[in-house]
Amino acid sequence: MRILGVDPGTQTMGYSIIDIDGDGGTPRCLDYGTFEGGRSKEIAERLHRLLGGLRELAERWAPDQLAIEEPFVDTARGAKSAVAVGQAQALALLVAANAGIPIYRYSPATVKSAVSGYGAGDKAQVQRSVRLLLGLGDAPMAEDASDAIAIALCHANTLRAAERVRAR
Amino acid sequence: MRILGVDPGTQTMGYSIIDIDGDGGTPRCLDYGTFEGGRSKEIAERLHRLLGGLRELAERWAPDQLAIEEPFVDTARGAKSAVAVGQAQALALLVAANAGIPIYRYSPATVKSAVSGYGAGDKAQVQRSVRLLLGLGDAPMAEDASDAIAIALCHANTLRAAERVRAR
Repeated sequence: MRILGVDPGTQTMGYSIIDIDGDGGTPRCLDYGTFEGGRSKEIAERLHRLLGGLRELAERWAPDQLAIEEPFVDTARGAKSAVAVGQAQALALLVAANAGIPIYRYSPATVKSAVSGYGAGDKAQVQRSVRLLLGLGDAPMAEDASDAIAIALCHANTLRAAERVRAR
Repeated sequence: MRILGVDPGTQTMGYSIIDIDGDGGTPRCLDYGTFEGGRSKEIAERLHRLLGGLRELAERWAPDQLAIEEPFVDTARGAKSAVAVGQAQALALLVAANAGIPIYRYSPATVKSAVSGYGAGDKAQVQRSVRLLLGLGDAPMAEDASDAIAIALCHANTLRAAERVRAR
């Protein structure tokens, strides 16, 4: 089972590719990184670049499922931020539909608790956890990339929990 | 000059293709209609279908510019509605970037006032106005399609006003 983890954004899109086997072994991280929309670019051009990056990634690795973080949209932060969340989400949704794979959504708190045992914690803590859990050492890693790894691991945990329930 | 007008939505996407000449003649409406995401479909599948429809349309008609309505996002209506606006906008932005054409945004009030002389008025009024302005008779027309025609006409007016200023 191969999972594409996506941390959606309209400036930077974090991604990860995680393989899990059916025997409960340590998940393997095959790829991770970020796509940059380009800060100086128009929003249309940024979305186009980010979608292109994600599509190529999905073609290269042929994931079976896609997991994304679905942020809590705080309308008090203004309409612009909520619209941007929708724009970034649309890219992940389009990639999943294009690849014909299902999409799973997790709240930020669920993702953090999956890798660190509790829902709080900052991005640096999440990164330390995913490095340890996947044996990634101290290779360079953007925080949006470690978030995307955490999202894929969160989905992997959910799949395994479901597996354990069925095996009872 | 050929304009693609888009009334963005995640259920229904209205579109229009309008040609204007440099002599101030009546704009010609070459095509109009709606794409349906499919109410029973998942959001990912809907966005994928809507994007596919828009892309085919842009390939068939090769517009020079894209005009969309940018709704006032009322955060009091909840985060979900603002996220949906972002998702629908993303599709229009992606089509413009893919075709390499500029995108112009107009508020609903600006669009209405462009076709009816004032910013109020309902969708039925907008439809009566665009039928009259373009000589479209009583051919069947969805309201999302007449909105998309109004958006393209609004952009055509803006272009002509700029032309008149330059010609002075």
